[in-house]
Amino acid sequence: MIRRKHYQSFAYAFRSAVSVPLQWRTTKIDREEGHTFIFTAGIALAEDPLPSWNESPAKQAIVQFVHETTDRANSKFVPPEERIATFDQDGTLWVEHLMYTQVVYCLERVSALAAKKPELKNVEPFKTVLSGNRGAMAKLTMKDLEKILAATLTGMSIDEYEAEVKKWLETAKDPRWKRPYTDLTYQPMQEVLRYLRANGYKTYIVTGWGQDFVRVYAEQVYGIPPEQVVGTAGGTKYGYDKSGKPFLTKERKLLLNDNNAGKPEGIHLMIGRRPYAAFGNSTGDRQMLEYTGAGQGARLEMLVLHDDAKREYAYGPAQGLPDTKVGTFTQTLYVEAKQKGWVVISMKNDWKRVFAFEP
Amino acid sequence: MIRRKHYQSFAYAFRSAVSVPLQWRTTKIDREEGHTFIFTAGIALAEDPLPSWNESPAKQAIVQFVHETTDRANSKFVPPEERIATFDQDGTLWVEHLMYTQVVYCLERVSALAAKKPELKNVEPFKTVLSGNRGAMAKLTMKDLEKILAATLTGMSIDEYEAEVKKWLETAKDPRWKRPYTDLTYQPMQEVLRYLRANGYKTYIVTGWGQDFVRVYAEQVYGIPPEQVVGTAGGTKYGYDKSGKPFLTKERKLLLNDNNAGKPEGIHLMIGRRPYAAFGNSTGDRQMLEYTGAGQGARLEMLVLHDDAKREYAYGPAQGLPDTKVGTFTQTLYVEAKQKGWVVISMKNDWKRVFAFEP
Repeated sequence: MIRRKHYQSFAYAFRSAVSVPLQWRTTKIDREEGHTFIFTAGIALAEDPLPSWNESPAKQAIVQFVHETTDRANSKFVPPEERIATFDQDGTLWVEHLMYTQVVYCLERVSALAAKKPELKNVEPFKTVLSGNRGAMAKLTMKDLEKILAATLTGMSIDEYEAEVKKWLETAKDPRWKRPYTDLTYQPMQEVLRYLRANGYKTYIVTGWGQDFVRVYAEQVYGIPPEQVVGTAGGTKYGYDKSGKPFLTKERKLLLNDNNAGKPEGIHLMIGRRPYAAFGNSTGDRQMLEYTGAGQGARLEMLVLHDDAKREYAYGPAQGLPDTKVGTFTQTLYVEAKQKGWVVISMKNDWKRVFAFEP
Repeated sequence: MIRRKHYQSFAYAFRSAVSVPLQWRTTKIDREEGHTFIFTAGIALAEDPLPSWNESPAKQAIVQFVHETTDRANSKFVPPEERIATFDQDGTLWVEHLMYTQVVYCLERVSALAAKKPELKNVEPFKTVLSGNRGAMAKLTMKDLEKILAATLTGMSIDEYEAEVKKWLETAKDPRWKRPYTDLTYQPMQEVLRYLRANGYKTYIVTGWGQDFVRVYAEQVYGIPPEQVVGTAGGTKYGYDKSGKPFLTKERKLLLNDNNAGKPEGIHLMIGRRPYAAFGNSTGDRQMLEYTGAGQGARLEMLVLHDDAKREYAYGPAQGLPDTKVGTFTQTLYVEAKQKGWVVISMKNDWKRVFAFEP
């Protein structure tokens, strides 16, 4: 039996096919039990795959890269299994200014931790964090921060950790936009992710932040499954609970610091292939872009420049300012980008809109 | 324009659909440049997906698992994005007895290494290996072996390493079968890999051996891409050659020992999801099977028992022998398997044929 709705899909596809140009999307036909015949085709009317982008060299570079690498007749054609694209997260896929989301999470987790371990209330740096004194907190050192990260990110089972992060993400809000952090992704970059995937690219996040943290929401927020999130990763320890059920505990041991040179190292460890396209926004992404660009054939390297103080933020070379604490898109990086033909994306000029929630 | 061959596929599919039972395979419709309309459907006449398996409880367990987890109406249905299956390699996907392939590779690489560094000729354990004296080589300790592994597997660029392994695999032959090692995969397990993939499962190798070594041939031999090979992994170091081109050097630092408890730890690090199916053959796979089995819903845990001295080897509980040096399917593991409902695959009784090259 042909199921009527599937047959209708085909009829629609057929009519569309002969009358208007089509844009194809990668589509899976999945086996389903109990149905004799299933037919689904991924067909959409030809439309702009990057509607939130202004017509500009940046947009043109993305479209040209996709066309060249997916056209079998082109010398730059890339076989589907080799199509890998990597994206930094903070400042590239979502807002990083002024405070990294994961740091906010860790600071807020301190009170929950202190409820379980009251002795922490009198121990620095936890005492300062619990005081809520922002002036004092601003003076915490990197070493203090490391202690806080270790205490709030390790020593619990991965299931507990994932549940905590999920719960927090559902309620926490960014102070400027008064929205959940997961709303603060850049709509133009979401379109790039989808456009690349529709053309057979596997999209990966390669982030300096905790791999386990980003994996909790990456599938829902970016359509990127956990196995395609590479990040800073600690060890885990296998053990058994009282009933004999096995579980993994997060440990303090650092396996991969996925920043700077750690990004290509992490890509080799977790993916084992050199990307064809890489997107970043700061010096922490430099080596990933260099490594991508050192491959043969078509390669696309792009850097998001934060030059839109009104809709988002302006920092780095856009302001002619020295490096800020976060999002260090330095003048040196800007010069290297120009020399190597990396494409700089101007938020202000290249993006029609920044967030999906904007009109 | 509808391309005629695609339309014919549909016509064939349509006729088949209404007349004979079909078996669906996951199929991708890929966008191709320059064609207005493409239609390909993954349809095959219903056929046995596991033809090298005898009709037995082991085969039945695999088929039932696939049916239950891919049927939306079944309470054990697993969403496609969560379908992960992990396979140990040595002794599970290919022959491990008597000497691990990677060890053979390392021993054979010693002479190439000595050609570059003649001073090694007078240093143990390299001197013994170069002597070719098998009696003396059999007495090498684990510490000697570690020195050999480190010297032959690290200190070179990943590109050099991959080229060396590839070259070696093309010429090296197993002494018993007189065939390339890559021919010695088990045909029934190749069928399981394909069957699971045809039903939306991502298949992973989770091996105690070197991740970089197995990645060189996994795609060609098993249809498993590098990013789906998890193994024992060392660090790499990012640097630049004289022309400023970046490259990664293999370092001695161990990041992941992917044996025993290291298997679930590696699965969490590299995949971030608990598998629904896991296949092993020795105590090194025990924790991976336990971890898989501790998940909710349908889970499949299987152990290959080497009880076929004629077609392959017999060792472990099949012989009632104490643990051998390799492939330690112990009596203890056998008991745990029975207790936990893991399915033991008897090579002798469950497999019609072992290798693809057999008649």
